[in-house]
Amino acid sequence: MRTWLLPENIADVLPAEARKIEDLRRAMLDTFRRYGYELVMPPMLEYIESLLTGAGQDMGLRTFKLVDQLSGRTMGIRADMTTQVARIDAHLLNRESVTRLCYAGSVLHTRPSGLHATREPLQIGAEIYGHAGLEADAEIQELALACLALAGISHIRLDLCHVGVVKAILQSDKHAQADEETLIGLLKAKDSAGLRELTRDYEPVTRDALLALPDLYGDGKVIALARKVLPDLPGIGKALDELQALADLAGEAAVTIDLADLHGYQYESGAMFAAYVPGLPNAVARGGRYDHVGEVFGRARPATGFSMDLRELARLVPEPARTSAILAPWGRDQALRGKIAELRRAGEVVIQNLPGQGEEQGEFDCTRTLVCEGGDWVVKNLS
Amino acid sequence: MRTWLLPENIADVLPAEARKIEDLRRAMLDTFRRYGYELVMPPMLEYIESLLTGAGQDMGLRTFKLVDQLSGRTMGIRADMTTQVARIDAHLLNRESVTRLCYAGSVLHTRPSGLHATREPLQIGAEIYGHAGLEADAEIQELALACLALAGISHIRLDLCHVGVVKAILQSDKHAQADEETLIGLLKAKDSAGLRELTRDYEPVTRDALLALPDLYGDGKVIALARKVLPDLPGIGKALDELQALADLAGEAAVTIDLADLHGYQYESGAMFAAYVPGLPNAVARGGRYDHVGEVFGRARPATGFSMDLRELARLVPEPARTSAILAPWGRDQALRGKIAELRRAGEVVIQNLPGQGEEQGEFDCTRTLVCEGGDWVVKNLS
Repeated sequence: MRTWLLPENIADVLPAEARKIEDLRRAMLDTFRRYGYELVMPPMLEYIESLLTGAGQDMGLRTFKLVDQLSGRTMGIRADMTTQVARIDAHLLNRESVTRLCYAGSVLHTRPSGLHATREPLQIGAEIYGHAGLEADAEIQELALACLALAGISHIRLDLCHVGVVKAILQSDKHAQADEETLIGLLKAKDSAGLRELTRDYEPVTRDALLALPDLYGDGKVIALARKVLPDLPGIGKALDELQALADLAGEAAVTIDLADLHGYQYESGAMFAAYVPGLPNAVARGGRYDHVGEVFGRARPATGFSMDLRELARLVPEPARTSAILAPWGRDQALRGKIAELRRAGEVVIQNLPGQGEEQGEFDCTRTLVCEGGDWVVKNLS
Repeated sequence: MRTWLLPENIADVLPAEARKIEDLRRAMLDTFRRYGYELVMPPMLEYIESLLTGAGQDMGLRTFKLVDQLSGRTMGIRADMTTQVARIDAHLLNRESVTRLCYAGSVLHTRPSGLHATREPLQIGAEIYGHAGLEADAEIQELALACLALAGISHIRLDLCHVGVVKAILQSDKHAQADEETLIGLLKAKDSAGLRELTRDYEPVTRDALLALPDLYGDGKVIALARKVLPDLPGIGKALDELQALADLAGEAAVTIDLADLHGYQYESGAMFAAYVPGLPNAVARGGRYDHVGEVFGRARPATGFSMDLRELARLVPEPARTSAILAPWGRDQALRGKIAELRRAGEVVIQNLPGQGEEQGEFDCTRTLVCEGGDWVVKNLS
């Protein structure tokens, strides 16, 4: 039995990588703060009813279940923090005004979302509650792009989608609505043959609209095309207007529109975005509007937000240079201790050389040393 | 069903408290770094054999167990990070030289350690591997005290103990050794009547030594008293010398010696300390030497370290003042957006007022606003 073997898709993070994650975490939380977002820390563990509320079956399967020894009830380890933060907004803070919240913490998944995906993402994100307007969605999209810039990521592709389009089509046709779950699955998979088969007996207008969706994919011009191809329902017009506005705010990111990208359809309610970078198959950030999530906690507040996996993002950050450190001899001499304390207060890394400790210092590069000259401790370069 | 009700001894951390925890976390990790400690991030989840190695039955009961859907094996959610970091040192880094590591992360407990204790401590700590000398213990103790100072804690009481004293007594007497577990339990409980009963047929020298331990409690003078009262075994002399040296390094903290405080006896192997503050019944920091933990991972490296619960410590930090922020109007005007970005880069909190968002801004105090004067956006005080 090799006791050190970790479970599949679970890993230790070693110093150089941990440093990148920590630096990125701080930079992002500082950015959230400068935009006026307040940090909250929901628990790792909650009763399953509260944790999985409105989260859909997929999230239920991804969540580890435990029996609470204190109550006998079933608890879950969070697989996502969005519902938790919505609960804090709805029930605990209970403010009337717009509330901006952010969070960073580990989540666990029973199964990896892909072959090489971790089962322990370090989720970081930000949310706006209490504002139904597109202004809030625009701020969230801007903030997500600002965070990706902190990770030094350029050449971002921003995929925009809007669940309002599909919802409007389904609402206009009871027949289609009954097949909602199957339809969403086929649209997600862009399975046109399956769609054709399922929609054979639908009203022609519904059928044509649904069959058009998988092809409504491409650059910003798709929005104009969709206005022509899709039926003139109020929900669709509003959705396409919002997509146009968000596309205009994408800055340097390349925008693609994908009206059949229904990832998160179960709890999203409006515009959605996903950010992709070259070389990574999965989105590095996902966001969107999910207005009804707080409802089950007693207050339906408009909500929009985004989240990312810090571990995944940190892999895109170049290796930092080793930090220059000062090697100090071991000793309890007051003058030496005073000098070491002073250097550390000034931000220097000072490593006291434990008797016989050896040369190797991991991520620290001891370029300097402390030596005693005429009773004074001074920093000298090591050749 | 009130879905928002959290399990017992599990809590959300709301903005003001979360801010204190985050600030303290950063200050401590920065201090670790200035002492030359490298950050590692072990996983939340491991196979149970690896996680509970040498950790004792108590830790086994505190650890949540899960079945891994990928392997069918039992996994545990970490209830402590010390063994994990020892595994990283022994197996992954595998350096010959002294290695200093630090960590910060959530751990989960099946049951709270006390009535009001959280089941989700935020454990932070530092460890030195590969150095058997007292110099390493002294550095760890100094670092723990420096961290408590960051939390603004004064009037620290440092309880010192040394498992070497009891170990030396037990090693000198096979009869006593057979009762090890019961003896440790009675000593921990300072149950003198029970001790008298159990040791009735022991050699008088062993019996007297064991019965003396619960009373060897008090200030630094206890060390001198112990030298007189306890038998002249080499292990005892060495342990008392080490306690004296650590007591001398305690700085402004008040030192108490407690030779029967055997908390962590199962995996500690040398000097141990616990830091107490007025008003809190439980130790706010615990540390000590545990040389054999890495053994099961293939390398027995000397080890000494300490850990604390950031959530508990943050409660001792006074409430921070609300942060002064700048309220900016909503708008996509390029000059306005440029000004906002510039202020945020300079570290200011700038909140864009979403149409109709209301006055309340949580922990931010909007004392200033951005107004357009003659085409320029300028910061003005709000009266």
